[in-house]
Amino acid sequence: MIKSPSPTDSASKVVQVDLGDRSYPIFIGSAELSRVNLNTYIQGQKALIVTNDTIASLYLDLVLGSLDEKQVDVVVLPDGERFKNLDHLNWIFTKLIEKKHDRKTTLIALGGGVVGDMAGFAAASYQRGVPFIQIPTTLLAQVDSSVGGKTGVNHALGKNMLGAFHQPRAVVIDLNVLNTLPNKQFAAGMAEVIKYGLITDYDFLQWLETNAQKLLNRDENALAYAIEKSCIDKAMVVSADETEQGMRAILNLGHTFGHAIETFQEYTGFLHGEAVAIGMLMAMEVSVLAGHLVDQDVQRIRSLLEVFSLPSRPPDDMVSTDFTSLMYRDKKVLDGKLRLVLLRALGDAYVEVDSSESLLEKVLISACGS
Amino acid sequence: MIKSPSPTDSASKVVQVDLGDRSYPIFIGSAELSRVNLNTYIQGQKALIVTNDTIASLYLDLVLGSLDEKQVDVVVLPDGERFKNLDHLNWIFTKLIEKKHDRKTTLIALGGGVVGDMAGFAAASYQRGVPFIQIPTTLLAQVDSSVGGKTGVNHALGKNMLGAFHQPRAVVIDLNVLNTLPNKQFAAGMAEVIKYGLITDYDFLQWLETNAQKLLNRDENALAYAIEKSCIDKAMVVSADETEQGMRAILNLGHTFGHAIETFQEYTGFLHGEAVAIGMLMAMEVSVLAGHLVDQDVQRIRSLLEVFSLPSRPPDDMVSTDFTSLMYRDKKVLDGKLRLVLLRALGDAYVEVDSSESLLEKVLISACGS
Repeated sequence: MIKSPSPTDSASKVVQVDLGDRSYPIFIGSAELSRVNLNTYIQGQKALIVTNDTIASLYLDLVLGSLDEKQVDVVVLPDGERFKNLDHLNWIFTKLIEKKHDRKTTLIALGGGVVGDMAGFAAASYQRGVPFIQIPTTLLAQVDSSVGGKTGVNHALGKNMLGAFHQPRAVVIDLNVLNTLPNKQFAAGMAEVIKYGLITDYDFLQWLETNAQKLLNRDENALAYAIEKSCIDKAMVVSADETEQGMRAILNLGHTFGHAIETFQEYTGFLHGEAVAIGMLMAMEVSVLAGHLVDQDVQRIRSLLEVFSLPSRPPDDMVSTDFTSLMYRDKKVLDGKLRLVLLRALGDAYVEVDSSESLLEKVLISACGS
Repeated sequence: MIKSPSPTDSASKVVQVDLGDRSYPIFIGSAELSRVNLNTYIQGQKALIVTNDTIASLYLDLVLGSLDEKQVDVVVLPDGERFKNLDHLNWIFTKLIEKKHDRKTTLIALGGGVVGDMAGFAAASYQRGVPFIQIPTTLLAQVDSSVGGKTGVNHALGKNMLGAFHQPRAVVIDLNVLNTLPNKQFAAGMAEVIKYGLITDYDFLQWLETNAQKLLNRDENALAYAIEKSCIDKAMVVSADETEQGMRAILNLGHTFGHAIETFQEYTGFLHGEAVAIGMLMAMEVSVLAGHLVDQDVQRIRSLLEVFSLPSRPPDDMVSTDFTSLMYRDKKVLDGKLRLVLLRALGDAYVEVDSSESLLEKVLISACGS
């Protein structure tokens, strides 16, 4: 389905997500925003770019300049996960209606995961569904949230509680935009890159360990390879299980813990990727207690995460019961049972459907101190 | 696909909506709420009933009593189209999260079109999609909005602008609940019944003319037949074109005009069905100017609508430009062109894709006086 990349080839790449009539290409390269003709993926006479105030000043003109003569409107959202809610989603709807966008309009998400999730959900819901294009501008969005069609917003009581499956028409990943990405955000994206190694791809995990310093220095070839490999791994999982009836859930390694942290901090503390880094280590600790991993495995991944200065411990003010009460609101809870993504081995994740509550409790108490 | 009903047979009926793995039954009968086992259509251990303050006092206990031992929560919305918005949708999400409903929960819409649209859109969006059941309690919801999977909420700037296609698992139509329906609401539902005759079914239109007095008196056999026939006609159109790529649009006869009226009145004036009645007459006037119908056709339908005391003229304070500015926000507008549903003949609707703007303007000026 997907060609295997070579770690030293940095020319433009295309990864195809195979989903029948909802299939689409992911373009990856060092100047894709100049190279890819966006107009190919816009059918009507109107488009709406959704972006945020940080990204607008950097890349909005470049995207606007690349669009043919048509009506292009822009919604600039405030930058941050705490604005990913119904109120701000309504900004997009208001602009679409005010500017008389019809069912043939195309939304363009220009930004990180928050912008992509909101523009995607707006596209899924406006007039019961219009097309959209993803132009992810953070590493995290490039390797994770822009691929696979999950869209949504947060509710005050839980992350990503509202949303839709709605696949984009194309994803355009321009490596150059990472040049303006702050280190903290870059590291958060690396947490999701490392996730792919942990869940399905031990060879990639080893490659990441070997090339961690290169990646930290944002070596272009290394970065291109890591992003392409991540997209290939994600496309494979999504093609096999688009609406998460089964295996797609392994993409959520560490996320049940991570979402609890983010919700506890009301989306103003750790970044999503940082919270996921902490969560992956906690999920690995449960995997150790379940007899699948050994302590050295956890230590090895902790060291890899530390190269990127990612956090490894939950916030000091969180106690174990904060985790459990928030984790039971997770979307993977079914009939009151938590379904945790665990590792059978490094590079081999699965969803634990039998209750592992006592193991979880031990890990939470150990991690939180109470 | 669908068996043909006999006008004198009032026993329970089932109309099947054929949509592959999204197919579902519509149960129609005089005491379906007691007869149909709702539990068959609920898979998990939890359910949430969405209803409104009018219906809750009448039928909530009956539905609650029919559900097996499981966690059943209830959201009571204020009654009225003006509450069909994102703010009130959020009431449903909040309850779902607070009561820890997971992806196996089932939403039950117990109410009219507003409740059905909101519960349906909430079901489409909660955790990216959970099942739901429709129990429509108004004639309009029974013959129209509960069937076909269109769900959504209004935006301050336009009706049904936000939503999703999300099919219910079952529709339960209990004729007894119409006993408590006010005459004005009953008449509004009759407008949509008459619509089916106008768009696809001249025989049914003639039957409606013959039986109008019986229907006005809510004769049970006549009503059962009219509802079943409407559901069959709608199921046929929906099965052929689930997501309105083409012919499904004929179900919107009169709706582009009607939505303009409702939006102009901020959903506090005419009921939806009343606005549709006015709109159908206006669409027929355009059809006369287009050379398809004669004045007598329009007069004939005006007389039929008048049996039910339905309005036939737009609000006095609306001028023609109010219509045009609001109609161009309609979801059927494509590339700036209005696509009106017109009649080739009584019982034969089509979507006019060529511009009929000058004809429309004549009708609007004639109807509004300016």
